[in-house]
Amino acid sequence: MSVTAASQFTAAGVAAGIKASGNPDLALVVNTGPERVAAGVFTSNRFQAAPVVWSIDALADGRADAVVLNSGGANACTGPDGLADAAAMAELTASALATTPDQVAVCSTGLIGVRLPMDAVAAGIADAAAQLSAEGGPDAARAIMTTDTVSKQAAVTSEAGWTVGGMAKGAGMLAPALATMLVVVTTDAALDAATADAALRRACALTFDRTDADGCMSTNDTVILLANGASGVTPSPEEFTEALAGVCASLARQLITDAEGAHHDVVVSVVNAATEADALEVARCVARSNLFKCAIFGDDPNWGRVLAAAGTSSATFDPGQVSVAFNGVTVFARGALGDDRSLVPFEGRDVTVEIDLAAGAETATIWTNDLTYDYVKENAEYSS
Amino acid sequence: MSVTAASQFTAAGVAAGIKASGNPDLALVVNTGPERVAAGVFTSNRFQAAPVVWSIDALADGRADAVVLNSGGANACTGPDGLADAAAMAELTASALATTPDQVAVCSTGLIGVRLPMDAVAAGIADAAAQLSAEGGPDAARAIMTTDTVSKQAAVTSEAGWTVGGMAKGAGMLAPALATMLVVVTTDAALDAATADAALRRACALTFDRTDADGCMSTNDTVILLANGASGVTPSPEEFTEALAGVCASLARQLITDAEGAHHDVVVSVVNAATEADALEVARCVARSNLFKCAIFGDDPNWGRVLAAAGTSSATFDPGQVSVAFNGVTVFARGALGDDRSLVPFEGRDVTVEIDLAAGAETATIWTNDLTYDYVKENAEYSS
Repeated sequence: MSVTAASQFTAAGVAAGIKASGNPDLALVVNTGPERVAAGVFTSNRFQAAPVVWSIDALADGRADAVVLNSGGANACTGPDGLADAAAMAELTASALATTPDQVAVCSTGLIGVRLPMDAVAAGIADAAAQLSAEGGPDAARAIMTTDTVSKQAAVTSEAGWTVGGMAKGAGMLAPALATMLVVVTTDAALDAATADAALRRACALTFDRTDADGCMSTNDTVILLANGASGVTPSPEEFTEALAGVCASLARQLITDAEGAHHDVVVSVVNAATEADALEVARCVARSNLFKCAIFGDDPNWGRVLAAAGTSSATFDPGQVSVAFNGVTVFARGALGDDRSLVPFEGRDVTVEIDLAAGAETATIWTNDLTYDYVKENAEYSS
Repeated sequence: MSVTAASQFTAAGVAAGIKASGNPDLALVVNTGPERVAAGVFTSNRFQAAPVVWSIDALADGRADAVVLNSGGANACTGPDGLADAAAMAELTASALATTPDQVAVCSTGLIGVRLPMDAVAAGIADAAAQLSAEGGPDAARAIMTTDTVSKQAAVTSEAGWTVGGMAKGAGMLAPALATMLVVVTTDAALDAATADAALRRACALTFDRTDADGCMSTNDTVILLANGASGVTPSPEEFTEALAGVCASLARQLITDAEGAHHDVVVSVVNAATEADALEVARCVARSNLFKCAIFGDDPNWGRVLAAAGTSSATFDPGQVSVAFNGVTVFARGALGDDRSLVPFEGRDVTVEIDLAAGAETATIWTNDLTYDYVKENAEYSS
């Protein structure tokens, strides 16, 4: 159930002193081969943090030996000096692992605009390299946490014997977002670089890109896949993509469940849309409506706010044919009042909103949260 | 300083019993001529409330005698019955004023999905028609309030002797938005219908469309202009548009200042953009970022969140050349740390954020608010 679940991956997580709290803050994930295929998906924010700039370049050849990650500092908006720090992290890691810096990806998360304490980082890398083990996944997952309250890990093993495992951090995000989502996924399936890249892009599109806690996108968001073929099995691209998407979906749900200050996890599903793009647009409009998200916090099945948000989309539908259900109770049915809203159960943490556009057969889902006092408190008091 | 500031307009506001609280909830604004030019700008939400559907049709000929407005019920998502209710409001008003229903615009605000109590509405229209006076503007402004804590009014008189006056309601909105913005503006300037329409569209584009409290758009938002030429003066279109935009800007600022739960009024200005559209896009991305809005609530000049929001735009700029100032202190200067953020004064209600894109000479401003506990509380507890 961790980033070292697949064969021939090692990891470690240590307290390097980057965080003032003394909590773990530096992690390594190492692919010991035989193959060293890698792919990455990065933030589309135009202010890319230094580690993102470095890692895009490092992964351009579809190969990597290791990922070094730190929490306690995002190394974002730090200019040329910050880029030199990211390069130094790769160099120190490469030196400890007897590889070259261009085979090392770098991820950072924490405060924007502050330089990393490179002496502490260097010592932490040496320490982590000395502690690498096939049981190190959980430690690595803990060392990348910031405002997360729990570490996030997942793994699946196929019937054919290959495994996909991964870890994630993030607690306030869009597709993904500002409190930064970092994900490392590993597999011992045998993949070529093109298959790894296509599978990672598709899995992200179906999972992390549909996870929208607060509509905010980070400068550091990164998802990296490492593959070594140690299982000796080459799955079909479809099989592998499905397994990878499963692990990513589990990690995405863990992120939403731990999102800053949330009281409800909300599934916004749009059904019977003319196109998947229409379904996604409507789901995203609803998931980003602060009024809707406040209503969920108030345990209010407010279909009016759902419609008002859907009405800002350009999706194909007839407003008089739309239906809205909360937790299975259709409170608005084809343009008119439906079942009594007092019938909607609101006891649990999970809330499902289904919007039926009656315009086709396509479907899409966005995972989000309610908007709560605690969200405001965390984000007003915690500088990121 | 009211919707009856211009010559030959009368108004009234009464308690019709639509609101359970017994507060004023029905208003009339009447143009007594000689001319009866009218123009309207309506929500772009695809779920248009019944009064919006009615008023778009009523104003299509560029003429209107009166506007009837109610609070206490939005008459939105109420189907054919709701449309019949909106028509009945116009018929009752026309009957009381000895005109025809197609000369009466209708505006409603309040809960979505609930039918109006038409007996109360009918009695209120009769009552208001009996109380119409040139001093009735303030009463009308009070009768359209919902979660507003104060009524909103403005007026300007030109040197040439014509006047523009207006009233507005709204306390949580986008361009404008869900707690519904209703605005009636009157003038005794002599205008043809085309000039009135063009001036209203331009004034809205410069003011209400740049007012973005929470990114949510209502089903009922309406801005109506009535003009009667009673001053005998025909201003140039430019002169009139400027005066109208001035009144609309005052009303827009009053809306932001009274926005639900806000602690700060925030001016997001983008300067030195390549195009006005670029400037607007960046300003809107920042103004809609919940993380940014929480930081303002926390009195935190968080330039990292400003950059992260700006970085999601497609505007032309070099991330390494962007600067950010809070209340005049440039905390991020051309891609690097600027003045110490502790120098930023945060005592007052007003906060100005200036983003310098260093990409041209165009400018745009969006007015917004911070995201606070009180915003969440009002919108979790108040069903709209």
